[in-house]
Amino acid sequence: MTNKIRIGIVGYGNLGRGVELALEQNEDFILEAIFTRRNPSNIDTDSYVVHIDEVLDYRNEIDVMILCGGSASDLPEQCPQIAANFNTVDSFDNHGKIPEYFNTIDRIAKESDTVSLFSIGWDPGLFSLNRLMAQCILPAGKTYTFWGKGVSQGHSDAIRRIDGVRDAIQYTIPLEEAIEDIRAGNNPDLQAEERHRRVCYVVPYDSKDMERIEEEIKSMPGYFLGYDTTVHFITQEELIDDHSNMFHGGFVIHTGRTAEEHNHRIEYGLTLDHNPQFTSSVLVAFARAAHRLSLEGQRGAFSIFDIPLAYLSPKSGDELRKTIL
Amino acid sequence: MTNKIRIGIVGYGNLGRGVELALEQNEDFILEAIFTRRNPSNIDTDSYVVHIDEVLDYRNEIDVMILCGGSASDLPEQCPQIAANFNTVDSFDNHGKIPEYFNTIDRIAKESDTVSLFSIGWDPGLFSLNRLMAQCILPAGKTYTFWGKGVSQGHSDAIRRIDGVRDAIQYTIPLEEAIEDIRAGNNPDLQAEERHRRVCYVVPYDSKDMERIEEEIKSMPGYFLGYDTTVHFITQEELIDDHSNMFHGGFVIHTGRTAEEHNHRIEYGLTLDHNPQFTSSVLVAFARAAHRLSLEGQRGAFSIFDIPLAYLSPKSGDELRKTIL
Repeated sequence: MTNKIRIGIVGYGNLGRGVELALEQNEDFILEAIFTRRNPSNIDTDSYVVHIDEVLDYRNEIDVMILCGGSASDLPEQCPQIAANFNTVDSFDNHGKIPEYFNTIDRIAKESDTVSLFSIGWDPGLFSLNRLMAQCILPAGKTYTFWGKGVSQGHSDAIRRIDGVRDAIQYTIPLEEAIEDIRAGNNPDLQAEERHRRVCYVVPYDSKDMERIEEEIKSMPGYFLGYDTTVHFITQEELIDDHSNMFHGGFVIHTGRTAEEHNHRIEYGLTLDHNPQFTSSVLVAFARAAHRLSLEGQRGAFSIFDIPLAYLSPKSGDELRKTIL
Repeated sequence: MTNKIRIGIVGYGNLGRGVELALEQNEDFILEAIFTRRNPSNIDTDSYVVHIDEVLDYRNEIDVMILCGGSASDLPEQCPQIAANFNTVDSFDNHGKIPEYFNTIDRIAKESDTVSLFSIGWDPGLFSLNRLMAQCILPAGKTYTFWGKGVSQGHSDAIRRIDGVRDAIQYTIPLEEAIEDIRAGNNPDLQAEERHRRVCYVVPYDSKDMERIEEEIKSMPGYFLGYDTTVHFITQEELIDDHSNMFHGGFVIHTGRTAEEHNHRIEYGLTLDHNPQFTSSVLVAFARAAHRLSLEGQRGAFSIFDIPLAYLSPKSGDELRKTIL
């Protein structure tokens, strides 16, 4: 018998691997199994790996399942299935579909007596929490979110879908002028394209297509149109050598006014060497909260807004008040 | 009948006045009364003012009392009395005495069926929450808190107690080199005196005492000894004209490592034009949470660690998920 929190990982990509590593930094957890759709014997890890089809055999062995699939197709399919039998934590990050996702998961978790923490990461997640707090504290104010410098998978994928493109990477970069304008308390009205610029590294199949590809990128509505966009053409080798990093980051800035024209600024920033490993670390801390909510008898879907944050810590309330408060 | 949250303010100094003003920015609140130890007719406000001795007459008129006294003597005396009859929110900021304060208030609130939110401000408060989250997410890391640039009342008071000092103001200022060292991910071991310097503006009664006063300031253990301390002697008029501002701020920086030597930095910063008015705005947002916890039937003392932060908002869960998450 162990008192450790027993964890299962569903999906073994960058995020799942990150969770496996983060669990080693927290001695109150034990990794019971990694669940995969692939052939378990093909997974390169020392952890115990099981095919996802056998997941129900582990109903009594696992306290919290950390779902490490993608938001586009994996999580909307997996989370309802897993949440019907296990407590879950996921980093669902499709902002527009959060209400629908919540409704499904909340219903299933309540029917199944489980706890599901969803959209747990940095945005949505930590950034959301900072937007919420800042807006509640300084309601006469304005919140700005900046992303980057870092790779946007969505924008990189959009470029890759263009005819003649072999591979591509797109960096989202905050505009320094916009940041300074906001920090100065000017409350500017800035859309996303006025706060960020986009830099693309593209590998063409044929160099004669470069002009057309650049044109197609820059005119793509919803992705690049309206943005200050730079396109560089490089070789596949250069892409692999120089653009395989996973750094990212960003910040939330809120400026607001209390009475008598006093201005205040709240700023939350992340500078991340490895985006998925950081998100994994967030997921692991919140797995502790999922377990605790479950032990309390709570049921349903919870976002970062709905959880007392003491639940992230292995320390007692007494210890937290004494050492951190 | 009103559905607004009915607020009482106890104490009408900078903080109480700030709460009065912040309530005007939030339409779901109504200020029922300000309670004071002074003669109510001497209080310069359009709000309804009552002597503190009559506070029990308002037991059924007020949902949450916002306690605006000082932490040194007012709150330890007032909070137990008020919490025995009302839900409360306060900004108790004597870090060393928090455990004792919590134990008293928690017992009284539980006996009295009330909710008491304590140590709600920016430090303790928002900074504490950021220390907690960062340490739980990146346990292989280190947290640094910086205060300033801003006036430290405790240090200003300590100077004023020196023989021959008529008045004084002390600014705490973060050391840029320390910040850069931390941001670079070097995890330096830095005590408070290695992260801040102190600048004092002192009005002497007699200029012949200046040398001795400066000597006494710089050698004061627990306050200035070990710090890079600068002392300027000025006139009372200069002190009033140039040093009556109330700006403050500071930040919490956490740097931590996930696997494979990837470094990450989490930074939370505040830049405040008016320290008490900002703290007042925090208190008001948390008064909403106190009311909601009370309606839920919760009882006892709660810190910022113990409250789902959705409770700070007048918006519904659906709205929050749709617009902020």
